[in-house]
Amino acid sequence: MAATAKKVKKSSETLDDESEALEAVDSCQNEIDALNEKASEEILKVEQKYNALRKPYYQKRNEIIKRIPTFWVTAILNHPQISGILEEEEEECLQFLEKLVVEEFDDIKSGYRIQFFFEENPFFENKLLTKEFNLGSNGDSPSSTSTTIKWKPDRDLTTMLPKKTTNTRRKRNLEYRTFFDWFTDNNDPINDDIAELIKDDLWPNPLQYYLVPDIEVEPEDDEDGEGVEEFGEEADEEEVDEVEDEEERAS
Amino acid sequence: MAATAKKVKKSSETLDDESEALEAVDSCQNEIDALNEKASEEILKVEQKYNALRKPYYQKRNEIIKRIPTFWVTAILNHPQISGILEEEEEECLQFLEKLVVEEFDDIKSGYRIQFFFEENPFFENKLLTKEFNLGSNGDSPSSTSTTIKWKPDRDLTTMLPKKTTNTRRKRNLEYRTFFDWFTDNNDPINDDIAELIKDDLWPNPLQYYLVPDIEVEPEDDEDGEGVEEFGEEADEEEVDEVEDEEERAS
Repeated sequence: MAATAKKVKKSSETLDDESEALEAVDSCQNEIDALNEKASEEILKVEQKYNALRKPYYQKRNEIIKRIPTFWVTAILNHPQISGILEEEEEECLQFLEKLVVEEFDDIKSGYRIQFFFEENPFFENKLLTKEFNLGSNGDSPSSTSTTIKWKPDRDLTTMLPKKTTNTRRKRNLEYRTFFDWFTDNNDPINDDIAELIKDDLWPNPLQYYLVPDIEVEPEDDEDGEGVEEFGEEADEEEVDEVEDEEERAS
Repeated sequence: MAATAKKVKKSSETLDDESEALEAVDSCQNEIDALNEKASEEILKVEQKYNALRKPYYQKRNEIIKRIPTFWVTAILNHPQISGILEEEEEECLQFLEKLVVEEFDDIKSGYRIQFFFEENPFFENKLLTKEFNLGSNGDSPSSTSTTIKWKPDRDLTTMLPKKTTNTRRKRNLEYRTFFDWFTDNNDPINDDIAELIKDDLWPNPLQYYLVPDIEVEPEDDEDGEGVEEFGEEADEEEVDEVEDEEERAS
């Protein structure tokens, strides 16, 4: 790093003043840092408050969703990124997904869990598959864990599926080949794109994906997203576009 | 998009119930969306409050910094990313930068401005160069503007500097070749990495960059950032690492 700028000849008096000034900057900076910390704490409290306020609505939403048996698999299949990791056999399996729950830990910073509740199904014994992220805010290294899946005989989708070398289905630079690859992989918990899309995009508003119209949207509507719009679909469109844009830039 | 999942033969009764359920999900979703909006508003208010609380400390900090004539140019030169766009001739010019101010607009969402206050200098007539970002939260397209620089005769650094084809100095995928290229370029205001680094990293804590030790840090300290540490330097190290990591992933 070029640090030539500091190397100007200075009298010892100038140096004394500069060093005094530096200490004053430091003490001022400490006041700013303390304010930043207080701001973060207050924002966290707001988020905690609204997490609690949203919770009963999420529960109610899940109860209603149970009346639409293919809701979750359809929403996932219609999601522009998450659908990319779904193999056909997995699609069949996710028909039995009757409830999805995403919960941040109480202090928000330290992590979150995604719970997949399944009906009795031909693939595995588990009623609940959980993937949980500990983001290491307390000094531990970040880690994630996932429920061990008790596959029924000859139904293990992590070994049965052909390992593709070309990426025919995935459209973006997502790291996982298949849904259960993603679910069982805990190697890089802080860069788990799929988990973040589930938490920050699918879970807050799955209806917009469930409702994606079957008809093709005319090309001229691509630009501003106006025109064809179904109920409940308007809210997060821009946000989703941003996620896509970022992914494109990153690829 | 595969939407086969929805195509299961259903009785009209089932369809009626599903459509009723969908409307119930939609109304529940509206309640959640309304809560999200209220949460955003509350968080914005907290941010506004702390912007106001921080302001006098930033002003005081700037007054003290004036006693250290090479403070800003040194901090910029020591910044791992911003330094990448500084040409040697520009380094000379930025020796005359006596004050830097970053201000978000009152509503925060709509934009911010970066002000560079210069002493009398051999390069241009302006005392103040401002780059201002309007992020289009009110429906306008995002835009940025920058002060027209009144270069002194034969001192225009945007035309004088050789246009390099190889990137000898810049280390990451920053888009700009030189500081004044960046300052005068308003083509892509929402992807202005340098402006964001100034706003979110340099401005909140320039002291950590000013203080970067001249001595080389031993390799084993790279991993956790502990060990060699000067006063005022501990705060944002992790954050900076994250910015770097993201940039590396994006490159």
